[in-house]
Amino acid sequence: MTPDSTPAAPSAASASAPAPAATPLAVVVLAAGKGTRMKSDLHKVLHPVAGRPMLEHLLASAAELAPERQVVVAGHGRDQLEKVLGPRATIAVQEPQLGTGHAVQQAQQALADFSGDVLILYADVPFVSAATMRAMIERLHAPDAPAVVALGFEPQDPLQYGRVLAHDDGRIAMMVEYKDATQEQRACRLCNSGLMAVKSADLFDLLARVGNENAQGEYYLVDIVNIATLEGRPCAVIVTDDADEVGGINSRSELAEAEARWQARRRQRAMADGVTLIAPETVFFAWDTRLGRDVTIEPNVVFGPGVSVADNVVIHAFSHLEGATLESGVSIGPYARLRPGAVLKTGSRIGNFVEMKNAVLGEGAKANHLTYLGDATVGAGANIGAGTITCNYDGYFKHRTVIGERAFVGSNSALVAPVKIGADAIVAAGSAVTRDVADGELRLVRGEQLVKPGWADRFHDAMRKKKAEKTD
Amino acid sequence: MTPDSTPAAPSAASASAPAPAATPLAVVVLAAGKGTRMKSDLHKVLHPVAGRPMLEHLLASAAELAPERQVVVAGHGRDQLEKVLGPRATIAVQEPQLGTGHAVQQAQQALADFSGDVLILYADVPFVSAATMRAMIERLHAPDAPAVVALGFEPQDPLQYGRVLAHDDGRIAMMVEYKDATQEQRACRLCNSGLMAVKSADLFDLLARVGNENAQGEYYLVDIVNIATLEGRPCAVIVTDDADEVGGINSRSELAEAEARWQARRRQRAMADGVTLIAPETVFFAWDTRLGRDVTIEPNVVFGPGVSVADNVVIHAFSHLEGATLESGVSIGPYARLRPGAVLKTGSRIGNFVEMKNAVLGEGAKANHLTYLGDATVGAGANIGAGTITCNYDGYFKHRTVIGERAFVGSNSALVAPVKIGADAIVAAGSAVTRDVADGELRLVRGEQLVKPGWADRFHDAMRKKKAEKTD
Amino acid sequence: MTPDSTPAAPSAASASAPAPAATPLAVVVLAAGKGTRMKSDLHKVLHPVAGRPMLEHLLASAAELAPERQVVVAGHGRDQLEKVLGPRATIAVQEPQLGTGHAVQQAQQALADFSGDVLILYADVPFVSAATMRAMIERLHAPDAPAVVALGFEPQDPLQYGRVLAHDDGRIAMMVEYKDATQEQRACRLCNSGLMAVKSADLFDLLARVGNENAQGEYYLVDIVNIATLEGRPCAVIVTDDADEVGGINSRSELAEAEARWQARRRQRAMADGVTLIAPETVFFAWDTRLGRDVTIEPNVVFGPGVSVADNVVIHAFSHLEGATLESGVSIGPYARLRPGAVLKTGSRIGNFVEMKNAVLGEGAKANHLTYLGDATVGAGANIGAGTITCNYDGYFKHRTVIGERAFVGSNSALVAPVKIGADAIVAAGSAVTRDVADGELRLVRGEQLVKPGWADRFHDAMRKKKAEKTD
Repeated sequence: MTPDSTPAAPSAASASAPAPAATPLAVVVLAAGKGTRMKSDLHKVLHPVAGRPMLEHLLASAAELAPERQVVVAGHGRDQLEKVLGPRATIAVQEPQLGTGHAVQQAQQALADFSGDVLILYADVPFVSAATMRAMIERLHAPDAPAVVALGFEPQDPLQYGRVLAHDDGRIAMMVEYKDATQEQRACRLCNSGLMAVKSADLFDLLARVGNENAQGEYYLVDIVNIATLEGRPCAVIVTDDADEVGGINSRSELAEAEARWQARRRQRAMADGVTLIAPETVFFAWDTRLGRDVTIEPNVVFGPGVSVADNVVIHAFSHLEGATLESGVSIGPYARLRPGAVLKTGSRIGNFVEMKNAVLGEGAKANHLTYLGDATVGAGANIGAGTITCNYDGYFKHRTVIGERAFVGSNSALVAPVKIGADAIVAAGSAVTRDVADGELRLVRGEQLVKPGWADRFHDAMRKKKAEKTD
Repeated sequence: MTPDSTPAAPSAASASAPAPAATPLAVVVLAAGKGTRMKSDLHKVLHPVAGRPMLEHLLASAAELAPERQVVVAGHGRDQLEKVLGPRATIAVQEPQLGTGHAVQQAQQALADFSGDVLILYADVPFVSAATMRAMIERLHAPDAPAVVALGFEPQDPLQYGRVLAHDDGRIAMMVEYKDATQEQRACRLCNSGLMAVKSADLFDLLARVGNENAQGEYYLVDIVNIATLEGRPCAVIVTDDADEVGGINSRSELAEAEARWQARRRQRAMADGVTLIAPETVFFAWDTRLGRDVTIEPNVVFGPGVSVADNVVIHAFSHLEGATLESGVSIGPYARLRPGAVLKTGSRIGNFVEMKNAVLGEGAKANHLTYLGDATVGAGANIGAGTITCNYDGYFKHRTVIGERAFVGSNSALVAPVKIGADAIVAAGSAVTRDVADGELRLVRGEQLVKPGWADRFHDAMRKKKAEKTD
Repeated sequence: MTPDSTPAAPSAASASAPAPAATPLAVVVLAAGKGTRMKSDLHKVLHPVAGRPMLEHLLASAAELAPERQVVVAGHGRDQLEKVLGPRATIAVQEPQLGTGHAVQQAQQALADFSGDVLILYADVPFVSAATMRAMIERLHAPDAPAVVALGFEPQDPLQYGRVLAHDDGRIAMMVEYKDATQEQRACRLCNSGLMAVKSADLFDLLARVGNENAQGEYYLVDIVNIATLEGRPCAVIVTDDADEVGGINSRSELAEAEARWQARRRQRAMADGVTLIAPETVFFAWDTRLGRDVTIEPNVVFGPGVSVADNVVIHAFSHLEGATLESGVSIGPYARLRPGAVLKTGSRIGNFVEMKNAVLGEGAKANHLTYLGDATVGAGANIGAGTITCNYDGYFKHRTVIGERAFVGSNSALVAPVKIGADAIVAAGSAVTRDVADGELRLVRGEQLVKPGWADRFHDAMRKKKAEKTD
């Protein structure tokens, strides 16, 4: 057993494309850790990466394998998990927390009537790909029929991890914790990710024989490999090509690193797909951002979830988008803020310091400056002047503003919803419109024009005198 | 011939400062590649770096050598190139595209009556410096009179590039494609950038003898070196000190890398010249940004083209500038947006969420909050209140607002252009001003003040009841 | 003497926690350098890092040792230093500037009646920690009673620095300038930071014997070590574990690097303390930023000095904060600008394009869009509509706006201070309020509503005709 032998272990990524597994699959996700290092009231595995809780990232990958059952083993903060998971998964409670083996045992009841493959995942190791999961399951069904398939990885710096001592064909000789390893064993660079695939028939049988005679007094999941191996049942390791995918997130610093890795990959993918990122490192995508071709994104743009951008869109600097739909040829920003329900039709334009929420901007329509469009529908070709505010809220209810095609809303107008502005209508600058404006009508709400010649001069004189007195 | 010998080849950067070349110069720019990896409808070489198409960067450097002729060899998308280039360059069409040698041949007609030096450049290798180009031309006129001068470079990772096998004095023994190279040849680290300088008398003669008996069935420009060498005419290589300058841009990812390199250098230059960049990596300059001394730029500032900043200016965070002129002592932002034609006179100030376009802000004048100044002239010492909007557009034409010295425009006012506010005049808060205000005059446009005691209390009661019903 | 011997020198960081020094301490800060490379009218040592002049960073660390005296040796630009320092430190003038030894000599008069330890610091080496300073002083009082304690460091690239040739126990054999060093001496990796601790009784005695027979004709402080050593008095070096802390700042580029290092550490500390930074590299803290637990900070947030953030606060992207206090459960931004005196009570909310200055936002109150709250008090539960402006300035004086609990200020309103809006009162949208509004009252300031049916249609016809004529 030498470090040299490990690269020969079959690679996860090189696994051939999977046929749908005939065997039913159950996924057991361990999520009972306290997450003390996060220093948070929010459950560790609910902290988001790319706008989505890490647990959801993991479940989404697992979902590609269409598992029949999902069991989440929870401890501290399990009410938060229940709320997020709903009926999607059975929650098994681990209390007290006596190690990873003990944690998996808590899933036994939920799987009492289940017969098939079991994939053991960790909610704080959320970026394991579906391809890797699939490769683990396939390996479980290989001709040599291993009792357990472990997922190994080869990190840059393997020092603190448990080691997988394996033969060239991936058969495991032994798995050993770093602190129990000899010098020679430590020289092995293949590490244990903790992830395992086991047949349900074997899993709980093996777990029942795991003891806790060790320094921590804990039941270690890894021991099922050594128990099986000692009994002459083969166990196998497959190795991920991408050590990052098994990186655990235990602190906000590691959370930020995971986010950075995710963003770096997403940006590369965007550019490969025909998106110009002038400064890729300043653009932050969400997990579900959809981007067209020949989209240009200037520096400093933040995407929240739910954004869809069509072809030939320009997003200027300092824009912030959530739940928005941008059709082709749209231009927004700089400083555009699009909130959920913002729909920008073909060729429309949102300019600087403009907020849009639950509103539709018609084809070719424009709102270029200092505007709030909330709960509104703006017709094609309409022009919304600078400083326009849709007054959509009366303190109790939200109301809708409807603006007709080619309407012209003069600057600094307040449109008090519910209100309709007709097609081709004009609202004069500075008007507070409280009643509907008909098609082609001019609405002018204007106060009396008071002219006081010389008043300002006298005011200046008086105030300068007062100021001089004050500063004396 | 060993890799060790190549560093001895004369360096481009160490070339002495050039005397103006006596020989006329023609520049041939190859721009016929399809640029498929960009996934763009925009011609690859028109994609911008630092706000300027890469082709323009290259032509600007070439212009320092005052070429008599410029020929751009175009294929796919040549109409886009024609539009950008206008009469500056002859466009030679390459169709079909049968290799780099074939591409240069297409320039023959445009250079039929030309006699002098020819410099062959690549539009997607846009950052070759004028100094390097000059060094190539000078080498062409060195006493050993090489038939061809090639530009070599020594990248970190030379694997995929063609190699230049050269003697210590820069004389080329052979140029060889990577795939045709022996192990020993591949060990050579001097690579071929593709750029060449040739006398026009030699160029087309050599090209005519290039064949296409190779795997790709293409005519390679590099073959002119080998043909000349075999005939006993010396060819020479000079080596750039800066491998980055010959980096090609073939994808949006490489475009972003070129942008990053450009920005990093520009930032270093700004700091060396006396500009404080609190977070250099968050400030993005344009190709023509001019900056004074003791300028402070906070994090997250984006410069579009055409900005000039004088001494002692402070640009606060999140500002965006294009086509703006900032005189000394000006302060802008955070969140200032200056658009083309914005001129800020000495000591004036633009604050947050303020947009300025085609407007002059007088000496010491201020517009500190939530304002739009478009097509306006603001006198020295004037104070533009929060929420002021110049209504410069009637849906068809733009009109001008002129504000006098020391005028005070109250908050939330709409100035409906064309309109003049006199010197020392005051516009009361919330006024929509449609007629000129005289010097020293107070203008007050104000609606009737309706007071409804207890109305709000009754409204609250009613709405609370309604809300309770709705949620029941 | 070999490089290998130097790591054995006692480490600054491993020094045991200090007992308060019994001996009085004087700190001499050298700040007479011209700082030419900064290209600035501002004194080099007043350039800020994390919003605080570098000199202040250094003095704050020194202050942890409670020095009895502080002497700043100034040359060029000393008036700027005097203004900043006030009575905190004696300024000793060095003119002309004849080297570091000569500089320290200028402090002799200010320390004429002082007896105790002297710590010699450099204002452009501002990030030496108090722990390191303390370790130097303690070493001075160690049983072997060194005449001088020098601070050494081991940089990545030691080439240009003076070397400290020391024995394993930290006793100095010799200090040598790089240019005077032999090959063997240069191989030593322990470099001289310039910082020294000396007893006042020794300092000026040793300095008096320093000559200027060297290439520069300068008096070097380092010579006091060699003079003492030659006389048989031991001198000692302690080595900082953190070479960064002795990094000098001589250019804006080095200033930016110091800022980057400072920010990187502060971000790590924030995350370790329970703050989520989605993109740590885009968040900029000030030297005194205070942050609670379970605070989330989105990308691109800039903190100026004086900000305090309680638990469970969310700061959305593109926010800018200075001198603001955010109580628990507050949410701000994106694009929130909080200026000095902004106080956000528990659970209140500031939205996009909102500026707040010298204003209190009551518990649960909201100002969500395009608003300016200056010199204002907003009651608990009040709702400030989009586009509301507090008109706090009449061109001469600032006035206060007071808004009652649960008041509702309709959109696009101007509140002309001084003015009071009562509890539960309502201001109708688009009102310019100049007189107080009573509790529960509705205030409606509204112009006449002019309706011109068909006018807009006729206007459109006329303008289209005019436009067509113009473009013909």
